[in-house]
Formats: sequence, structure tokens, C-alpha cells
Amino acid sequence: MSNVSTKSYVVGVDIGGTNCRAAVIDHAAGKIVARSLNIPSRAMDGEQYTAQQVVEAVRQALDNANLTLDSIAGVGVAVPGHVIPQEGKILWAPNFYGQWRGVYLAKPISEALKVPVYLGNDANLAALGEYTYGVGKGTNHLVMITLGTGIGGGIIIDGKLLTGSNGGAGELGHIIIAANHHARGGNTAYGTLEGLAQRDAITERAARKVAEGRQTTLLTPNYDRILLTPQIICDAALAGDQLSIETYEETGYCIGLGLASIIAIFNPEMIVIGGGIAQAGPILFDPIRRATQANAIGTLFSTVKIVAADLGDNAGIMGAAALAIIESAKVD
Amino acid sequence: MSNVSTKSYVVGVDIGGTNCRAAVIDHAAGKIVARSLNIPSRAMDGEQYTAQQVVEAVRQALDNANLTLDSIAGVGVAVPGHVIPQEGKILWAPNFYGQWRGVYLAKPISEALKVPVYLGNDANLAALGEYTYGVGKGTNHLVMITLGTGIGGGIIIDGKLLTGSNGGAGELGHIIIAANHHARGGNTAYGTLEGLAQRDAITERAARKVAEGRQTTLLTPNYDRILLTPQIICDAALAGDQLSIETYEETGYCIGLGLASIIAIFNPEMIVIGGGIAQAGPILFDPIRRATQANAIGTLFSTVKIVAADLGDNAGIMGAAALAIIESAKVD
Repeated sequence: MSNVSTKSYVVGVDIGGTNCRAAVIDHAAGKIVARSLNIPSRAMDGEQYTAQQVVEAVRQALDNANLTLDSIAGVGVAVPGHVIPQEGKILWAPNFYGQWRGVYLAKPISEALKVPVYLGNDANLAALGEYTYGVGKGTNHLVMITLGTGIGGGIIIDGKLLTGSNGGAGELGHIIIAANHHARGGNTAYGTLEGLAQRDAITERAARKVAEGRQTTLLTPNYDRILLTPQIICDAALAGDQLSIETYEETGYCIGLGLASIIAIFNPEMIVIGGGIAQAGPILFDPIRRATQANAIGTLFSTVKIVAADLGDNAGIMGAAALAIIESAKVD
Repeated sequence: MSNVSTKSYVVGVDIGGTNCRAAVIDHAAGKIVARSLNIPSRAMDGEQYTAQQVVEAVRQALDNANLTLDSIAGVGVAVPGHVIPQEGKILWAPNFYGQWRGVYLAKPISEALKVPVYLGNDANLAALGEYTYGVGKGTNHLVMITLGTGIGGGIIIDGKLLTGSNGGAGELGHIIIAANHHARGGNTAYGTLEGLAQRDAITERAARKVAEGRQTTLLTPNYDRILLTPQIICDAALAGDQLSIETYEETGYCIGLGLASIIAIFNPEMIVIGGGIAQAGPILFDPIRRATQANAIGTLFSTVKIVAADLGDNAGIMGAAALAIIESAKVD
């Protein structure tokens, strides 16, 4: 193989609080060609162990692709936290056991593998993944929000990932949409998008309505509000349960408020909505679109596409790969 | 003079609903060397007249600088509306009589003067002005909000002005901070930053408190709530009037909510607050800083400077000049 085609291969890694996993991506083809197993991230044991686990995941993925370290452009690593990319440093990762602060994670991985290693925030990289390989291909101005246990975001401006002055940009869950509201996300202020539209906000919204004694199919003989999930509520909504439909309507309204602000700020071509919650489909997207239109600047709303993410769970890992391609090209 | 030093001169123009004015800027020295008079913008007569007035203002400013059109890099024009810079087009200017839509203003000016003419949104260009010549010199990531009759914004990322996919970016007055609030700005949704912190929001906030029968020095024998201005309230606050102090506290709180969102989104180095309202000083800036800190992500708040604008009324005109310098250099 020539140098050029060889360097089309790149490895993306996604580290979560529990597990990490790696995938080999063929950049030119725009797809994953091999994966590692999910292996424990060992965040509670300390960063040197986590670095070892990442190294192991990278080796596994390469083995499964029948490739060696020589054939890859580099390794990109998606981390759930505030990363300073140019320093390969995790400033703060609240989801890692002990809330990692000030950890230089790129260096030990890079020393073990002898390839360049680049870190990024997972939600930022999900946006880069969708932009590079997913639904955002061909756009130049894209904003992605990822709806899950928390709400993350990523912003592409003129084809470049916005990281801000210190790597912390794109925290779209922290946008304040209803300051007087009591809801707060895990680490956010009152009335943030995360506080009002993350996983627990959705289940709480439904549980509150159930508690008000309304008629609903959610109130089965085994009903337990602790066990409610967005999936259960979504299924009920799709089957016509009014309470569940309203739960998604209200959630969509909150997300639409956030998108109206995002549109005023960025005038983006496309807003991508990803994460597990977004798989609800039209039951969520229809109210999102209505609320966005009703609250956004008309001339800017008319030119923005609001779409579902394309890459599912792979957005972060593929975005990490894209980061490694972009950053290693700068060095060359 | 050599070509290089000659091309350090550039003309900035600021068009308002009523008047327009031009200034010659020495880019290398970073200052205004001559100005036109304020002349009527004639927006109600149609764009060809406005173009003529801009041409006249540019000629006056050049005459006053003893310079000719040959010696300038170009003309930048700040417009209060949604501009598509690459087309020299005003998509929508609600403050111009008849709400201009789809007006190609750069072309007739450029044809008359035989120099390149570049349009930009006035609040966007104010940010570019502060970044290039004002308080933001030396930064790379800066966000500016301009507080006045409305609220505008401008965003500098990695040293470049963010205009978005279609020229409409930076409308920071349209950020929704309190969706349940009834207040609306002129063209904004419910509960926007503009609705809650623009000029009329401040005077209404004070007038409401006066109407509640509270003790206040604002209630003079000639008191008329229609005649209240932010300046009157500011003066009263500085003299110790509690009602007026609270008015600024609450306004600062609303602005701080917007800044907390901006910090989460951009992780900027600096936030510049300009416009007439910002001249209130610490009586406004202290509550802004407190509310921002209380609602922003801590690690991002700790690295951002929140400062008053430096260029006053000249931010837009100097930003327009900076735009012409930047854009004409691309052509060269």
C-alpha cells in the first residue's frame, strides 16, 4: 500500500465512565472497518490504568483489522469532560470516578503506542463525526446536540470544530432557557436545557403527570416511577397515550427554545439531534420543530435543517477518528 | 507615500435609521483621523438615495483627511440588520423605513466610488472593531453584546468574525433566557435577553416599581414614566436610590444569564459589553458579574474577562473599517 492510502486508516476511541472501546476507521471510505471489545475503562484505578486500557483497545481494534500501528494516521480519543486538546489534558471529567481533574491522558497512550494521540470532548467529537462521516457531510455550519443522561453539544463553523479559548466550548446543555424553573441538570444552573430536557427531566415530567392521577397506560399494575424510562414513555406515546405524548411535546418545546437561541447565535445550515433520546422520532422532532420555528428569527429558521443524527453510538468514536486525521495532517 | 502605508487608510461607515456617517481610519495607527458630518440616511426615500448619502459621507470624510479614494483599501459599511456579506446584500433591515428586504446596497456605492465596498451587521462589526482596535486587541476568542434600544452581538472565533451560513449570526439579543416571561423585544420571542434587558425593559422595570408605590427619588413632582430613561435611573441609583439600584441589579441578573449561556457555548477569553446602557458602570457590571458566575460553568467562568467596551459610539464604524481591511486583503 502507498503511504497515502495507508494513512487513510485511523483509530477512534470512546472512553466512558465504565467502558472504553476503539474502532479502526477507513477515513476515505468513511466507515468503521474493525472494532475492539468493550473493555473496562478503569477510571477508578487511576489514569495510568485507563491509559493501558485504551492502548489495549487500540491494539485489539487494529488486530481485528489486520493492521499495524504503522498504518494509522493517529489515535483520537473522545472523553466525557472538559478537554484541553492542544495539551492532551483532561481538565475536568465529572463522570470519571473521583471526578478527574488535570489529567494528561494523551501522553502515556502516545508513548505506549508511538503514534500521535489527540483528545477531544465526546459531544464535540460527535458533532465532528456527523459532519465528517454522517448526516452533516457537505455542510459548513453545523450544530449538534446530544440528548441523553446529560446534554452535550458540538459546533462546526466553516468546517472547523469550535473548541473555544480553552477547549470548553459547545456545552449546549448549559444554555439557560427558563431561569425561573427549579430544574437543574447534574452540574448545570437552574433552568438549563439539560435540566429541562435530559433523560431524568423526561421521566420526571411523565411521573409528575401520573402522580396527578391522570388517565394513562403508564400506570400499569407494576408501575414504579423509578423504573420509568424515555423508551417506555415513547412507546406509550406512539400507542396513543395522551400523557406520554404531552411529555414529549413539552420536552420538544424546551429543546426548541434552546435551538431558537442556537439559531440566533450561529445561523447554522443544519442542527443535528443525536443521543438515545432522539431515537423517539417524530413524536419528539415535530414539537421540536414547531417550538423552534415559533421562537427563532424567521429569516434564520427558514434556512436551517433540523435533522436526526446518522451515526448513532458511533458518532463520538468516528469524530475522534476525524480529529486524528485533521490534527495529524497539520503536523505533516 | 508607498502603496503599503497608503493602504493603511480605510473608510468605515455607520448607517442608522436616521443618519449615516463616515470616518477615515488609519489602520496601522488604529485610530480615526477624520470624519464626515452626520448626514440623513434617507432610508425612507429608497436605497439609491441612501447609497448616495453614503457616497457623500465617504467623500466628506476623505476631504477632511486630505486623502483621495486612491489612498484607501476600501469602504466598510455597518448596517442595522441582517446582511449577507458575500453578496453585499441587506436581507432585512427592520429599523429602516419600510423594513428593507433584499437590497443590494454595496454595488451602487462601489460603482460610484470605484473602490471595494463591504457590508456587515452593525453589532457584528462593533465586535470586530473592539477586537481589532479596542479592548479586545490581542485576544482570539471574544464575544460582544451591545446594549441599547435593542440588543445586538458579535462573535470573534480564532480571530475571525462569525457570520454564520447566511450572514445572520451573532443575534445575541434573541437568546431565550426566561421562556415563561411575558417580555418581548421588538422582534424577539418571549423571554429573550433583548426583551428583558434592552432600554425599554430597564425603564419598564423601574416604572413598575414606582407604580407599586415604593419610596424612590424617581417620583419627582414632574414624574412621568414615559420620560424615564436608563440614564435617569442610573443617576438615581448612583445617588443611593434603592429602587433604581434594584432595577440595575435585576437587569444585570438577566444579562448574566445570557452571558452564562454564551460562556458555555463559546468558552471565550473575553466578553465585551458595549452600547449606551453599559455606560452605567459598576452599578450594572457588578450584578452582571455575580449572576454570570452564579450560573456559568465554573472552569469556563474562571478564565473569561467581562469588560466594558472601549470605543464607544465608534465601535461600529471602526469595525466596518476593519472589515474592509480584512476583505480587501483577501482580494489582493
